[in-house]
Amino acid sequence: MELWTIAPLAALASIVVASYLFVYVNKQDSGTTKMREIAGAIQEGANAFLKREFMYLAVFVAVVATVLAIFLPKNGPIMGVAYIFGSICSALAGYFGMTVALKANVRSAHAAKEGLNKAFPVAFRGGAVMGLSVVGFAMLGISVVYYLTGDPGIVLGFSFGASAMALFAKAGGGIYTKTADVGADLVGKVEMDIPEDDPRNPAVIADNVGDNVGDVAGMGADLFDSYVASIAAVMILAVGLAPGISSFDNPFVNLPLIFAGLGILASILGVAIVRVGKKGNPGKALNWGTYITCGIFIIMALFVTLYLRQEIETWAQSNLESSLYPFQIWGALVVGLVAGVVIGITTDYFTSIDRAPAIKTAEASKTGAAINIITGFSYGLISMFPPLLGIGIASAVAYGLAGVYGVGIAAVGMLSIVGMIVAGDAYGPIVDNAKGIAEQSGLGEEVIDIADRLDAAGNTAKAITKGFAIGAAGLTVLALLATFQEISGAAGFDLMKPLVLAGALIGIAMPPLFSALVMLGVGKNAFRMIEEIRRQFREIPGLKEGKEGVKPDYATCVDIATKGALKELILPSVLSIVVTLVVGFVGGIDALGGYLGGSIFSGLIFALLMSNAGGLWDNAKKYIEAGAFGGKGSEPHKAAVVGDTVGDPFKDTAGPSLNTMITVMSLVASVFAPLIVMYALL
Amino acid sequence: MELWTIAPLAALASIVVASYLFVYVNKQDSGTTKMREIAGAIQEGANAFLKREFMYLAVFVAVVATVLAIFLPKNGPIMGVAYIFGSICSALAGYFGMTVALKANVRSAHAAKEGLNKAFPVAFRGGAVMGLSVVGFAMLGISVVYYLTGDPGIVLGFSFGASAMALFAKAGGGIYTKTADVGADLVGKVEMDIPEDDPRNPAVIADNVGDNVGDVAGMGADLFDSYVASIAAVMILAVGLAPGISSFDNPFVNLPLIFAGLGILASILGVAIVRVGKKGNPGKALNWGTYITCGIFIIMALFVTLYLRQEIETWAQSNLESSLYPFQIWGALVVGLVAGVVIGITTDYFTSIDRAPAIKTAEASKTGAAINIITGFSYGLISMFPPLLGIGIASAVAYGLAGVYGVGIAAVGMLSIVGMIVAGDAYGPIVDNAKGIAEQSGLGEEVIDIADRLDAAGNTAKAITKGFAIGAAGLTVLALLATFQEISGAAGFDLMKPLVLAGALIGIAMPPLFSALVMLGVGKNAFRMIEEIRRQFREIPGLKEGKEGVKPDYATCVDIATKGALKELILPSVLSIVVTLVVGFVGGIDALGGYLGGSIFSGLIFALLMSNAGGLWDNAKKYIEAGAFGGKGSEPHKAAVVGDTVGDPFKDTAGPSLNTMITVMSLVASVFAPLIVMYALL
Repeated sequence: MELWTIAPLAALASIVVASYLFVYVNKQDSGTTKMREIAGAIQEGANAFLKREFMYLAVFVAVVATVLAIFLPKNGPIMGVAYIFGSICSALAGYFGMTVALKANVRSAHAAKEGLNKAFPVAFRGGAVMGLSVVGFAMLGISVVYYLTGDPGIVLGFSFGASAMALFAKAGGGIYTKTADVGADLVGKVEMDIPEDDPRNPAVIADNVGDNVGDVAGMGADLFDSYVASIAAVMILAVGLAPGISSFDNPFVNLPLIFAGLGILASILGVAIVRVGKKGNPGKALNWGTYITCGIFIIMALFVTLYLRQEIETWAQSNLESSLYPFQIWGALVVGLVAGVVIGITTDYFTSIDRAPAIKTAEASKTGAAINIITGFSYGLISMFPPLLGIGIASAVAYGLAGVYGVGIAAVGMLSIVGMIVAGDAYGPIVDNAKGIAEQSGLGEEVIDIADRLDAAGNTAKAITKGFAIGAAGLTVLALLATFQEISGAAGFDLMKPLVLAGALIGIAMPPLFSALVMLGVGKNAFRMIEEIRRQFREIPGLKEGKEGVKPDYATCVDIATKGALKELILPSVLSIVVTLVVGFVGGIDALGGYLGGSIFSGLIFALLMSNAGGLWDNAKKYIEAGAFGGKGSEPHKAAVVGDTVGDPFKDTAGPSLNTMITVMSLVASVFAPLIVMYALL
Repeated sequence: MELWTIAPLAALASIVVASYLFVYVNKQDSGTTKMREIAGAIQEGANAFLKREFMYLAVFVAVVATVLAIFLPKNGPIMGVAYIFGSICSALAGYFGMTVALKANVRSAHAAKEGLNKAFPVAFRGGAVMGLSVVGFAMLGISVVYYLTGDPGIVLGFSFGASAMALFAKAGGGIYTKTADVGADLVGKVEMDIPEDDPRNPAVIADNVGDNVGDVAGMGADLFDSYVASIAAVMILAVGLAPGISSFDNPFVNLPLIFAGLGILASILGVAIVRVGKKGNPGKALNWGTYITCGIFIIMALFVTLYLRQEIETWAQSNLESSLYPFQIWGALVVGLVAGVVIGITTDYFTSIDRAPAIKTAEASKTGAAINIITGFSYGLISMFPPLLGIGIASAVAYGLAGVYGVGIAAVGMLSIVGMIVAGDAYGPIVDNAKGIAEQSGLGEEVIDIADRLDAAGNTAKAITKGFAIGAAGLTVLALLATFQEISGAAGFDLMKPLVLAGALIGIAMPPLFSALVMLGVGKNAFRMIEEIRRQFREIPGLKEGKEGVKPDYATCVDIATKGALKELILPSVLSIVVTLVVGFVGGIDALGGYLGGSIFSGLIFALLMSNAGGLWDNAKKYIEAGAFGGKGSEPHKAAVVGDTVGDPFKDTAGPSLNTMITVMSLVASVFAPLIVMYALL
């Protein structure tokens, strides 16, 4: 069954389409000199961040690769190389996607002069480059590793490399973006009383850069990570089904590749279909794009299942102990995908500006900031119920259909349409930037209004993507837990065993610790930023008054955000790796299994809570800004701004970094499992 | 081995000493007419709350008891009676303790005129009545049930009844106290600009009542609940060690009773020892009281272990399959107790006014309310690491020493000194009230200063107790999980089983849901209260100006808080029982085991986070009020007040109610386990 080569072919197609869209975006008009100037500064800042990030990453990756090469009892050097390769592929996808995003922002702002239907495709196709690059480079990388080694274990090494990049891009980018945002807002809006995105603010470029490094590159790397991890996990589980047989001869190893390949093709079609009319609704267009992509994927997967049915059944009967039927596998795939969409939709309910939670939180602002925060936080707590129920039911049903393998396949199903999801998500910061550029270069009310409508759609897309990303990470880490069990040979992780329980109690403490450290990092870094912004307003004459020709020193702000973000990232990252190894080498496989389980539980909880409460506070503020409860500048508005500021590091730094953190921890455990089995203390 | 009768004898001694202290407090001078008037109003309000609470409770208990009597396959009617008896015993302890607290407040305020060393014993002995009543009535109840039935399973029914009372007292009282507090503060301090505890404020009596119903009666009922549950759990685990043998002949069934009896005696001695000099430090006196109680208990337990050693070893050799040695059991007991103290101390670090977390949070207030909240929240997240590690290590060590039975014994060890712990905790609201009475009746600067110092010690004691209560609940519910496993006959709860996992994912969503509902309940109820306070200021002429003879209508505010609190409690309470039964009857024992495990994990997380972050925000505010960063009235102070207001429902409503909630859920599962085994769907 060489059908798995559909995966690299789809990956190549994806990269080709991405390149075509790159050219399309690039050839659009980039507007006035002023616009180009602003866009140029953002691009410069983003590149400065990426450059430094890659530098840190290179050191980190080199160290870890060396450790893998020396210490792993089997395939050490190859694992090291795969690890490096994984981080490079993810970095490439991020670099490619972000380069386009930085071109698409100014070009869609310019196109907005001619109407919504002209600006939308520029922005969306810019986002699509990121989406298609992620799945393209990910799948190409997996295929190369798999083709050369035939060993899913090495694919796990590749996945581990991708997770390193995700940690830097998502958590580091998250600290960066909020440092800049909080700094710019607190000094600019609050102290100096100048509007958002005003060019006089020294941190305005850093703020715009932040949207790109946090949301475009960060989210891309995060989903790259989950995508690869889910595929690697299910391949390893498939090997476990028929241990003696070559992977290439085992159809269950190849199936996730085939399904993922189909998902890429569906995403390409979905991207091609999305469009919006002159009076159209860009939010609806994005949602329909997602639904249609899902539909196409499910049907394609069904046909392939029909086609392969006989072959798989025959093979399974003669090679597997337990039964595993093709349609049940397809069912698990669909269950995962549907769960992902349901989680996205419930996230949307809890964060949408026109739904009860946001409106009630806005109303609570009437009695002050504290009640706003308590209300938003409470809805955030409630919001985790549907997705957790969804993940619980999906995993149980998938298991019922096709065992542990089914749980992995459900994760693959959920992640199959990642190309489309990331496209919609990256669209968000592009139009957010476009709005900023339109404001900074004074394009007039009408254009700003169009940019606003594009931006509102982006916010919804972003909220759905976050829910989706958390759900996908949840199923993926559950599959990784099964992989860890497979590799370590554990019989199970029984909570009634003392070491499993003790591990779980330590595990549940890790995601909160990680969140706290990155949020405190934002605080510390923002403090440095605030000092610098104040200094510039104090020392640069004519800056505050907006004197002709006087410009702030954008570069220093960008530099502070960059350096600080990467510095503050070190402690939480190292802790999440080191504590995992300590628990493993001291407590052994049982403790480590419990630890992973615990960290998955609390990781999911806090990721959902923080992302959703953050989004909710943001929209409660926007609801008031739209005129309710006194509107902009009123006391309730001030209260809602406090809630929004609390929510910022929740939703853009700590919350979404947790996906990455738990994936990293799971991968560390799986990669080092053979060593831990040999040398654990207890 | 009839040595277990030490338990009821110690319980009787405890009640006798409590009665003596009651008389002591009662015969103290209750001060001026004005003071008596205020204290009378508080007493009236508290009694009104209790009366209504008991009414609701009676209906609830009657319904559940009927359900137990009809549906349980074995011993239904007896279980129903034990259930009613448990709720009555807990209610009696609460009523007795609170009656004294309401006498001790005004009497210690009066005694403060003669100095700290006169006021302290009045307040502390008032608290001690609660502490000794809790352990006295709890142990007397257990002993009666055990003596009459000889069946630890029925003791579990008694425990279930106590948990019903805890739910009403802790969660209902928590909603009550914050409703009154938030309402009084928001209208009084913020809108009307009148000081705290000002007699013109219509909600001031309700606020004072709240301290008593939430902190005295609530905390007492909560620890009553954990105390009984831990003893019942370990008795059942002991039965499981030697199934065929009568409980009375099984020394392992009797050991927890003996140890708990010794703990009561140690607490009585500890209470007798605590005293403070004229210039003494009441906080230190309370802490030393706790340490000395621990020491006495450990030594007494050691002697009893030495005395029983031979008998237990001989019995164990001929009746048990696995070995279980007396000294190892003693070790597990000590491990639990030490873990409790360590958790208390780390809680103290994270919430104390003179430690880094509170100071840094206070400092963060310089950049506004949002940064104050993010910082405090972050430290709250970090603060859960030490106690979770502590519970993890304690349970693993206790298991290593004496198996699952050891985990239960560790919980008993931790809870052995509950008499002393509750005494210190109940002291807090008494002196808080004393301070309020001193201010309202104008006793002058010097007296208020002494009341302030007494109050500060109370706050520290409260923080430690909360950490302790959470730790104790944690170990208790782990023991209850083992009990559930024992009763249901499950082999274990393996996270890799799909139903266990799905159950766990639903379970982790429950405590956040419960927290959110009670916090939103506070919001709704506070809103009603605010409307009423505003109405009174508007409609009662001369009230705001403080005209001679004009008094607000305190009773209506008390009534609103009371009705609302009990109303808002219904949904979360019913949900936590019903969802548990649904998960059990649909998913079966595996799903229910996972569900309990998951709810324990997230229950611990949120209980620790909310209690600690709340305490931290409170003290950060107090740190600023003591003069730092601009002091009272400055911008940082206003920011810190927002943090404190957010923290109020965290630390006094949602956080501490979670102990009770997870205990209730565990008990529901254990009590209904036989039915679930018979009728589960999957």
